[in-house]
Amino acid sequence: MTHQAAGVTLADVQRPVVAQLDAVTADLRAIISADFPLIEEVNGHLLQMKGKLFRPTLLLLASEASGARDPRAVRLAAIVELIHLATLVHDDSVDHSSLRRGMPTVNALFSHQISVIMGDYLYSRAIIELVRLDDLEPLRVLSRVTNEMTVGEMRQLGAYDALSFREADYELLIRSKTASLVAAACEVGALRAEPAWRRALRAYGDALGMAFQITDDLLDYTEGEAVTGKPSGQDLKEHKVTLPLIAALPHLAPEERRMVQQLFLASEPPDEEVAQVMDMVARCGGLDYARERAAGYAAQAEASIEDLGPSASRDALRDAIAYAVERRR
Amino acid sequence: MTHQAAGVTLADVQRPVVAQLDAVTADLRAIISADFPLIEEVNGHLLQMKGKLFRPTLLLLASEASGARDPRAVRLAAIVELIHLATLVHDDSVDHSSLRRGMPTVNALFSHQISVIMGDYLYSRAIIELVRLDDLEPLRVLSRVTNEMTVGEMRQLGAYDALSFREADYELLIRSKTASLVAAACEVGALRAEPAWRRALRAYGDALGMAFQITDDLLDYTEGEAVTGKPSGQDLKEHKVTLPLIAALPHLAPEERRMVQQLFLASEPPDEEVAQVMDMVARCGGLDYARERAAGYAAQAEASIEDLGPSASRDALRDAIAYAVERRR
Repeated sequence: MTHQAAGVTLADVQRPVVAQLDAVTADLRAIISADFPLIEEVNGHLLQMKGKLFRPTLLLLASEASGARDPRAVRLAAIVELIHLATLVHDDSVDHSSLRRGMPTVNALFSHQISVIMGDYLYSRAIIELVRLDDLEPLRVLSRVTNEMTVGEMRQLGAYDALSFREADYELLIRSKTASLVAAACEVGALRAEPAWRRALRAYGDALGMAFQITDDLLDYTEGEAVTGKPSGQDLKEHKVTLPLIAALPHLAPEERRMVQQLFLASEPPDEEVAQVMDMVARCGGLDYARERAAGYAAQAEASIEDLGPSASRDALRDAIAYAVERRR
Repeated sequence: MTHQAAGVTLADVQRPVVAQLDAVTADLRAIISADFPLIEEVNGHLLQMKGKLFRPTLLLLASEASGARDPRAVRLAAIVELIHLATLVHDDSVDHSSLRRGMPTVNALFSHQISVIMGDYLYSRAIIELVRLDDLEPLRVLSRVTNEMTVGEMRQLGAYDALSFREADYELLIRSKTASLVAAACEVGALRAEPAWRRALRAYGDALGMAFQITDDLLDYTEGEAVTGKPSGQDLKEHKVTLPLIAALPHLAPEERRMVQQLFLASEPPDEEVAQVMDMVARCGGLDYARERAAGYAAQAEASIEDLGPSASRDALRDAIAYAVERRR
């Protein structure tokens, strides 16, 4: 069964739950508000750099599509986004990133100290809200996933060695870092559904999250090209090994491998070298291979939900697959 | 009712629960173990710098003394110590501290990155273990307290302005930073007891935690003196305002206040200036006032548990008060 969805936008995916997404944003705002001026200041900044609400969207769609709509879905979606936000704040602090979604990060705008404390503040608020639901099940799923994401962050620290970081390591990394929370969002949306649908939606989220992250890593090789004609290569500049490079490596000539090694040893690799390695990766099939893997996960995601009853939300979940692998940013 | 306990040691306090404390350490070790080499390495380091187990001790004693011993007490004590450990790892990262309990901190020995991730890892493990107990009550208490501690860390950031940080700010700070978790440890030990005992033990823990922290801050003014004849003054060097200084300030001459201001503006205040300010604080009654406040909280702690039935654990809880305010380190 194939589903035609070329040119799908995020707005298409969100259409069935767009009103609820507004409620999610309002709920998130209420949950994190604090009677403490500095926290309110950081909150204001975080709410301004509001993301795409991809995980809340999936949770709400999963809840609808599972056939057993959960009345807590908006609250659960806000909590999942809050956990995601807490993770981003700490990730940016760990990576010393200065920009996120085109805005200064908390560590850049405030301080390293404040970003560590804020991440803890946001995460513990999420746990408090989960406890208030008086149900251990979402807590069980989300506490496990939060722990898995921290292990993913540890794995990320090992992803800076071009010649030893293998595809299996990469899969473990992106599963723990990205797919785990996407899978949890879908599963938590389906907690009131039949166990079979809960499992199906979890499997869907896992495969979708994998496809999403592989595409993200691909875009770092292609994105600039499509938009401005100039490749970005940020990951290579930061010495992050992702699938395109891993796939290309075995097909490089010894001299080319030495160039890769050199780039990974340079503290600030020149743009020219980055561009050369990107060309090599493309020429040796690294991009094609990554696209193929993303497509494989996309097919897996599609298969996971093919037995779900028909609904606008099920269609939107399918559109989400197309969106995940075809988006340009 | 007064209780004579001069010269009480921590070993005296721990005597009734010493076997269980060994079980707590073993349990903690098992809970944090991970199938990931880097995490195991950090764990090994953290277990080496094992603290006094003050909070687990109080939890176990509270459980015994409450008259309704909780069979989960050892596990709960391990979880409380784990939350404490997670907090320390992030606090050291926030403060850029290089030593803790005479050993290098995680941020110093590994890296800032690893300490942020490890704190998250440890805290999320604690939540997983709480969820596994299949009871929302300890989760309710401990998630609230963890959030309160993050607000305390935010308050700490405001405690670097000698002339504007008041006693009321200081009280809020140490209550959220220290007393909240001590109170929670005592309360969680008494979850199976009558509500009146649960409340009493919580109140005991709150007052004990306040007395403990005020004493800690006092020791920074007196500790070195008692042991080596030379005051330490680490807090002043780091521009941390604590109760002795707050209490002394109104009694300083204008010229002396200017000296304090100067010390707080110097990026690395000379030892001589630190010693001068410490003398001024002592001369103007700052130490006496802080001792008085600690004694007041100690009396409050004692009063909170005076109606508990007699037991070796209740006596140990009383000894813990004497230990908190009379210890030299």
